[in-house]
Amino acid sequence: MPGINGAANGSTAYGEIVAEKIIKEEHKPSAPSQISEDDMQLVLQNFRLLIADLCQQFGMGHPGGAIGMAAIGVALWKYAMRYASHQPDWFNRDRFILSNGHTCLFQYTNLYLSGYKAMTWEQLLSYHSERPDSLCPGHPEIEHEGIELTTGPLGQGIANAVGLAIATKHLAATFNRPGYDVVDNHTWVTVGDACMQEGVGCEAFSYAGHLKLGNLTCIYDNNQISCDGSVDLTNTEDVNKKMEACGWETIDVEDGNNDVAAIVAALEKGREKGRQKPLFINVRTIIGMGSAVAGKAVSHGAPLGADNVATMKKAWGWDTEKTFHIPDKVKKFYAEIPQRGDQHVKKWNDLVAAYSKEHPELAHAFKARMAGKLPDNWQSMIPSSFPTDATPTRKSNNLVIAKMLAEIPTFMVGTADLTPSVNLTHSGYEVFNPPDLKPTSGAQGSYKGRYIHYGIREHAMAAIANGMAAYSPRTIIPITSSFFMFYLYAAPAVRMGALQRLKVIHVATHDSIGAGEDGPTHQPVELAALYRAMPHMQYIRPGDSEEVAGAWKTMIENEDGPSMISVSRHALPQLTGLTKRDGVEKGAYVLREEKDATVTLISVGAELSFAVNVADALAKTGLKARVVSFPSHTLFRAQPLSYQREVLRRNDNIPAVVIEPYVALGWERYADAGINMSSFGHSLPGKYIYKHFGFDHDTMVKKVQGFLMSWKNGDLGRGEYVEL
Amino acid sequence: MPGINGAANGSTAYGEIVAEKIIKEEHKPSAPSQISEDDMQLVLQNFRLLIADLCQQFGMGHPGGAIGMAAIGVALWKYAMRYASHQPDWFNRDRFILSNGHTCLFQYTNLYLSGYKAMTWEQLLSYHSERPDSLCPGHPEIEHEGIELTTGPLGQGIANAVGLAIATKHLAATFNRPGYDVVDNHTWVTVGDACMQEGVGCEAFSYAGHLKLGNLTCIYDNNQISCDGSVDLTNTEDVNKKMEACGWETIDVEDGNNDVAAIVAALEKGREKGRQKPLFINVRTIIGMGSAVAGKAVSHGAPLGADNVATMKKAWGWDTEKTFHIPDKVKKFYAEIPQRGDQHVKKWNDLVAAYSKEHPELAHAFKARMAGKLPDNWQSMIPSSFPTDATPTRKSNNLVIAKMLAEIPTFMVGTADLTPSVNLTHSGYEVFNPPDLKPTSGAQGSYKGRYIHYGIREHAMAAIANGMAAYSPRTIIPITSSFFMFYLYAAPAVRMGALQRLKVIHVATHDSIGAGEDGPTHQPVELAALYRAMPHMQYIRPGDSEEVAGAWKTMIENEDGPSMISVSRHALPQLTGLTKRDGVEKGAYVLREEKDATVTLISVGAELSFAVNVADALAKTGLKARVVSFPSHTLFRAQPLSYQREVLRRNDNIPAVVIEPYVALGWERYADAGINMSSFGHSLPGKYIYKHFGFDHDTMVKKVQGFLMSWKNGDLGRGEYVEL
Repeated sequence: MPGINGAANGSTAYGEIVAEKIIKEEHKPSAPSQISEDDMQLVLQNFRLLIADLCQQFGMGHPGGAIGMAAIGVALWKYAMRYASHQPDWFNRDRFILSNGHTCLFQYTNLYLSGYKAMTWEQLLSYHSERPDSLCPGHPEIEHEGIELTTGPLGQGIANAVGLAIATKHLAATFNRPGYDVVDNHTWVTVGDACMQEGVGCEAFSYAGHLKLGNLTCIYDNNQISCDGSVDLTNTEDVNKKMEACGWETIDVEDGNNDVAAIVAALEKGREKGRQKPLFINVRTIIGMGSAVAGKAVSHGAPLGADNVATMKKAWGWDTEKTFHIPDKVKKFYAEIPQRGDQHVKKWNDLVAAYSKEHPELAHAFKARMAGKLPDNWQSMIPSSFPTDATPTRKSNNLVIAKMLAEIPTFMVGTADLTPSVNLTHSGYEVFNPPDLKPTSGAQGSYKGRYIHYGIREHAMAAIANGMAAYSPRTIIPITSSFFMFYLYAAPAVRMGALQRLKVIHVATHDSIGAGEDGPTHQPVELAALYRAMPHMQYIRPGDSEEVAGAWKTMIENEDGPSMISVSRHALPQLTGLTKRDGVEKGAYVLREEKDATVTLISVGAELSFAVNVADALAKTGLKARVVSFPSHTLFRAQPLSYQREVLRRNDNIPAVVIEPYVALGWERYADAGINMSSFGHSLPGKYIYKHFGFDHDTMVKKVQGFLMSWKNGDLGRGEYVEL
Repeated sequence: MPGINGAANGSTAYGEIVAEKIIKEEHKPSAPSQISEDDMQLVLQNFRLLIADLCQQFGMGHPGGAIGMAAIGVALWKYAMRYASHQPDWFNRDRFILSNGHTCLFQYTNLYLSGYKAMTWEQLLSYHSERPDSLCPGHPEIEHEGIELTTGPLGQGIANAVGLAIATKHLAATFNRPGYDVVDNHTWVTVGDACMQEGVGCEAFSYAGHLKLGNLTCIYDNNQISCDGSVDLTNTEDVNKKMEACGWETIDVEDGNNDVAAIVAALEKGREKGRQKPLFINVRTIIGMGSAVAGKAVSHGAPLGADNVATMKKAWGWDTEKTFHIPDKVKKFYAEIPQRGDQHVKKWNDLVAAYSKEHPELAHAFKARMAGKLPDNWQSMIPSSFPTDATPTRKSNNLVIAKMLAEIPTFMVGTADLTPSVNLTHSGYEVFNPPDLKPTSGAQGSYKGRYIHYGIREHAMAAIANGMAAYSPRTIIPITSSFFMFYLYAAPAVRMGALQRLKVIHVATHDSIGAGEDGPTHQPVELAALYRAMPHMQYIRPGDSEEVAGAWKTMIENEDGPSMISVSRHALPQLTGLTKRDGVEKGAYVLREEKDATVTLISVGAELSFAVNVADALAKTGLKARVVSFPSHTLFRAQPLSYQREVLRRNDNIPAVVIEPYVALGWERYADAGINMSSFGHSLPGKYIYKHFGFDHDTMVKKVQGFLMSWKNGDLGRGEYVEL
């Protein structure tokens, strides 16, 4: 097999030295049998020149990486990938992720050449133009045809691809039957030198190897150049050895600039049936290949320059006057792709039709999953009432959803190694793990399993969940879980889920200083500000089981992006009769009204009962207090102004005081004063910590009284938020 | 060398199976020559029983891991580490980091046994008590004697240790002379199975191998158990092979429960002079060793139970009635440690004295660095004025600090692979890299170098910087840099820096939608909320070069924690004569006063000039606008209320409108209305994007006018923040 060598070292210093050598030598592409070497050369040159011209037109863009991956693109879109450019949402299509998202022109140009209808010639030329409706943004975006997930923040694409491959494995194990592989798509992900260094990528690689995802192929665009220069300035690890240690098979392709045949052969190995390992193809390429800045970092993030582009064209015998030229031969080379895609779809449709006859019930279920439908009765699986004894809201979660998790196969729940803490196991749950893995402890795995042990890999967990959610809308609804504090590790991927409006539900436990003795490293005080500020993120802090029920209803119905439910480690009193599940979807609601109130007390989550208790105490002193439960800023802001005013009644000149042991940031919008945190937490057992920070009953009552005195006396400045 | 085997596989399924085997068999400790096997047994048993008793007393704690590491503790504190328990701040002490911070009792008990004065018997017994002044919090905290850095969030300790080892390498290269190794301490870090999985750990391992940090030893407490059960549920990678691929040498210790001699031998290999690789010691241990729950996840995070502890005591021939018992033999075993430490210090003091004679100037510089002193004239290195043409604030940074960076050796600046973008190189800078590394491109390295190519490893970068800062106060002031958006990747470590009040300066560039075409993945809109909410974090967004000067003065003077300067990619007009560097340290200040103002316009950072322009436009319509520059919420909140009122003048019934294309969260405290973002950004070149989101001049003027009309008409609700 020419150019394939499983044993070579993964990361000898490469970059400029090799670039120089290859530029000087005469290299011709090694082409698959259907095409001559000369014609393949034409195709590759054309691709590179299109990229160069596209960056040249507005003097912006990332040409180098895309140019260097020309041969990889031909191998993928022309030969290896199974997709239908005229039916881009075909369920069983291969999934492609560009983890090195800045090389987006690589993908856009391949989408155009392979006939995606939305990617018109005008659209391709709109890269970095003033068009807000461009399908060629600076990084690929999920909203656009042919793009599976938005990428850009490096390394995450690897985890996204792992999520897609998990989805395939799971759906295949669930629905395939002998002779009927109705789900058997492959996942391909390209990565650059940067993705290889990011922690989230390392986490995902390790986990993919563990899971034996033989349906996943990673193509490493190994050009040994990053922004700072040659990669060996900062990374000299033996990449292949590392990947093998993580359970991957590795293949080297030595001339990734020209050797299309070798790349195709490697890709075909990746999609062989029954593979037990994911495949890592280490493809040596030259950034900016063919240009005067080939092999140099400067070709990464800026146009090559008019002279350089002209020189490239001249050297390859192209007309230097022509830009954006595509010879007929190249057009013809790609022309058959849409039709081939339609044939893939037809074949699959026939298979599904036969499957529907042979396995009618299964096919019915399969179609429901493809349509992203939950059973009509899902809401009835949520209990209508709850035990009235004190319950940690992390346990309320389980009371609310255990039946749904057990009975609705759409939900795949998992945790970053906090199974005993997050309470998300349910009756008859199976672990998602390779069937031949026999763990020392715990249940044997199955790809049918819907409980995922992500390991201590929070960032990858959230990015993998994004991939699972993106496989097809609502076919799988991933639920992740960890301590709230460690959703800071996961935050870059949670954000990407929000940006893409992916339906992922995050269960964040231990969300209060009340979690106690683990101390300030584990006590969130500022993190809610991030999630309250994040667009398309529903962050909800319910106060008891009833509100947890409301939160889940809201989260399951939410089609605008991810949700996060933020729950307590410790037992909370049940405010039975006061809390209302239907209140949660409005973000805030009146827990206790008082017509002639002196103050509105707002509270939320683990400390909701504090407000009720303070109100009771004030009542004894003759001060009437309204109480508002405020589980979600985001949801409240989405309500009509009239409702917001009705809940807060600030226009009745009733001051609002919020009680939440987080920093105040964000509450200033809804309250005039607050009992909040202004520091990090402290290591003290739960029963002592609230008092330590002034959240004991007596102190809170005094603080509110003091504030009301100042309010009455007019001692306060207009619009000032008072930290009590 | 008994029990040492460099070739064995790093991660065969272990846990319970081996635990059972070892518990059943008779194992005796292999002890260094000074002590009998029986006596070593006594020491190890004593340690385990103390841990068990400590968790038992309040029914809380993490016993399993600490118990499993008993032999590692003896090997470190009794034999391998060079430290002075009675002079814990000795400059040249070995540094120890407990990356698996939940096993804190391991460290506390060893601190007690080896004679740290602050760790009294009463203090040791205060673990998980109600004492807020306990020196035994749920995770080790830097504030307490003998603790080098706060740990707990997993994996970060590895990067902290890399930072400490970098500090040593750098100071040694700078100050050591033949015969005078005045800095030659070693760094030791213990890690658990969880740390091995976290991305930040993977990043740090890879970078440490690249840097050839032969002064770093990682001790892997390989008990193959995590919260969910056996590690092979979720991770089956070949750990040693992975570490070797990352440039580490590996050693296995097969019986880490008993074989103290083997551990000591391995540790001694780690500290051999002239090592070219960091050392990874893979120590097989049993979590909860000796108890009935040995090898089981349940021993991780909860007390073993009274019966179990009694059974342990009985099996080992200890009095079951006695708790917290330390036999005299064990006391004697540890008794010599403080004296040995004093001898280390004395020897080093003598060395420094001789060095001061031989190399007086160098010794003077060395002492200044140890004292954490900047040159008296550092402020004079900041230019007093700047060019008046439009300048990106990322370039202003360089105008402000290039001289300081070049001349003051305290600063070590680095980047997560964005050298061409962050503009922090300076004249004559040398790259921190192994001297024998000859990169394909870029400068040859030296451990004397003060410019760090961290690679595309943002999270590790920030955690490494924490380690460097913690080496000794202000001996090194690390400056990190990346795009602001990717400080979300780094956020867990930035937070740990804030929690520990470490002096680290983060330079965050491309902080505005104005960065343009890279699109929403690269445009921060919600991230400032996190850093504005984070305690002990100075987040500053300066508006032009003058304010950048003020920001640096403030950051360099800040002793309360890390700082972050948030700067633009694109050129900003210089508001020469309006902006004031001294204003920055107050967080906000009046840029333009108007006695009879109708409105206060607030703006900040890249968009500061927008407010000035809008004010000018309003003036033409007869509306007088004050303008406030507001670079830092944190700094402003620290001002006296009188100053805050003077700046905002909300009590004069002047409404305040803020202009910032971030989400509003946090501004509601200072403004009545805002022109903000309510969505993620968009991929459009800089010159189009502001208009796309309504931040063009005309739209902003109209919005403010509209708001003022509503304000005048009294259409607004009390306390409501209006998003314009």
